Amino acid sequence: MQSSLPSNPVTLADLASEAEVSLSTVSKVLNGRSDVSRKTRAKVETLLEEHGYRRKGGAKSRLLELVFHELESAWALEIIRGVENIAREKGLSVVLTESGTRHSPSPEWVEGVIARRPVGVVLVFSDLAQDSRRQLEARSIPFAIIDPAGDPAPDVPSVGSANWSGGMMATRHLLDLGHTRIAAITGPEDMMCSLARIDGYRSALNAAALPLDKDLIRYGNFHVDGGRDHALELLSLPDRPTAIFAGSDLQALGVLDAARQLGISVPEELSIVGYDDLQVAQWSSPALTTVHQPLIEMAEEAARMVVRLFEGDQPNNLRLDLATSLVVRQSTAPAPVSS
Amino acid sequence: MQSSLPSNPVTLADLASEAEVSLSTVSKVLNGRSDVSRKTRAKVETLLEEHGYRRKGGAKSRLLELVFHELESAWALEIIRGVENIAREKGLSVVLTESGTRHSPSPEWVEGVIARRPVGVVLVFSDLAQDSRRQLEARSIPFAIIDPAGDPAPDVPSVGSANWSGGMMATRHLLDLGHTRIAAITGPEDMMCSLARIDGYRSALNAAALPLDKDLIRYGNFHVDGGRDHALELLSLPDRPTAIFAGSDLQALGVLDAARQLGISVPEELSIVGYDDLQVAQWSSPALTTVHQPLIEMAEEAARMVVRLFEGDQPNNLRLDLATSLVVRQSTAPAPVSS
Repeated sequence: MQSSLPSNPVTLADLASEAEVSLSTVSKVLNGRSDVSRKTRAKVETLLEEHGYRRKGGAKSRLLELVFHELESAWALEIIRGVENIAREKGLSVVLTESGTRHSPSPEWVEGVIARRPVGVVLVFSDLAQDSRRQLEARSIPFAIIDPAGDPAPDVPSVGSANWSGGMMATRHLLDLGHTRIAAITGPEDMMCSLARIDGYRSALNAAALPLDKDLIRYGNFHVDGGRDHALELLSLPDRPTAIFAGSDLQALGVLDAARQLGISVPEELSIVGYDDLQVAQWSSPALTTVHQPLIEMAEEAARMVVRLFEGDQPNNLRLDLATSLVVRQSTAPAPVSS
Repeated sequence: MQSSLPSNPVTLADLASEAEVSLSTVSKVLNGRSDVSRKTRAKVETLLEEHGYRRKGGAKSRLLELVFHELESAWALEIIRGVENIAREKGLSVVLTESGTRHSPSPEWVEGVIARRPVGVVLVFSDLAQDSRRQLEARSIPFAIIDPAGDPAPDVPSVGSANWSGGMMATRHLLDLGHTRIAAITGPEDMMCSLARIDGYRSALNAAALPLDKDLIRYGNFHVDGGRDHALELLSLPDRPTAIFAGSDLQALGVLDAARQLGISVPEELSIVGYDDLQVAQWSSPALTTVHQPLIEMAEEAARMVVRLFEGDQPNNLRLDLATSLVVRQSTAPAPVSS
């Protein structure tokens, strides 16, 4: 028997004989059944991986798994809605899991998925541990990652959005309104999306032949307090900016609060651009001009990717970046005439 | 055979013989299999109902179903988080369904649930059609309703919150701050929660021996525009109110926007109380004083209720109302000294 030749793939019987266990034991491991000892399970998993075993045949259930790192994120709802849209279209039901403090879902989660045998898995922002990934691959359960941070593993199907263009568009809009002192508050320095947006901002200033003032670029967290704290500093500078490009709508709300505390009126004395275009951007007073990140569409694309992989299609591109766009509302206005 | 006696319940064999179909066909209907004609299915369902058949034995899957009328609701995320908390605790996975434009989930949804055979079903705000309800009952799949509107069917397990007390607390807080011209904007007049909150408001005014001005009570929708439109009118009255109790945080954001448009400062010239205590209440500038509706806990209770029903417990109360509480932030202040 030449089980290592791709033309003659390994069978479960081969694996059982190599592992010195019964065929039914191998089958139990493959189906995520709990009545197998930890040691036997590990032995069988290793052989499945070594031989690159891929189960044939479809899903057991019409389920699509959706895994969040944390549901508390302001993005969660839009992503759920996008995945639900595709699930409804395809007659699938969505199983929702919050992986909690862990950066990737737990081993127990993987066992559950294997037992449910769903059509596939959509992960938000989190990554799969190498082990979990191989376990899914052996069962031919496809997965894709929704990754707005722009930092996916290169060999994993993922969907993001055009961060650089978003930074460029936001800054250009402010330049077009006559602003020349434009500050930028963005996310953590180690996130690709922060870097890409700031590069877009820089390029827009360069193209307008404006000098770059390092004091006006701030890295922080994406929450309201991140925006508020940096804005309180920026707006207390002797030559304070007339416009602030924030890294998220929440940061923009923080900037708005800082301005109100300092008695600076928006948009008359200060223009603010947010990022994401969450519902809250419309609810804010004044309503936020912001960069629309197509979260619903990103979720839809990731779900579609998984369904296509399940149906046996190989995508041409593993990484898909959807376009961002600028939504102009009431928080931006022409630059105040300098005194 | 005396199949109608409760002491000798009907068997599937009895049902098969009465329906003149095979035992396997009855079993297929019970398990939500699709390979049964519509006519036969209807015949068997009718007999299941007539005989009050109740399946014995547990769930097939470790799934908990969560059904929303519309996911777009600002509450959705908190409710999902609450149900996830209990699911995690009990080792269950949550299947999420949006019933969409329909007020109750579709017949296809019920078929899917029957086939998945979950531990139980949590419904948000929507009701089950009588047919669907009977189908679940025959399979011994329990359900409970999260019903913040306060209008559940009397014989259905449901969880809500103390709306009357919420209205009372909000109004008392404003009275304590010295306000006497207090307006109230609430939801649609045909929702129990709107009526209960307004009654709480009324009782607080009565207790303070203040007259009731009907011009200051408005019914509308729970969204931002509902708050904005009513507030623009209220704040243009000759003897305008110095405080507004809004029916939701979104309405309160609308009131805030109306005040900004009219150049009325909050909280110096106008105090605002919201309702719900969504995340956005903290993000607002100024941050909203609001009535905390314990949405996460309500969802947790409903999920616990379903799990207890699944385990065979009969709850003492079918309706559970959790307490509301007042969260004081920056949008309320002592009444301005009248000029």
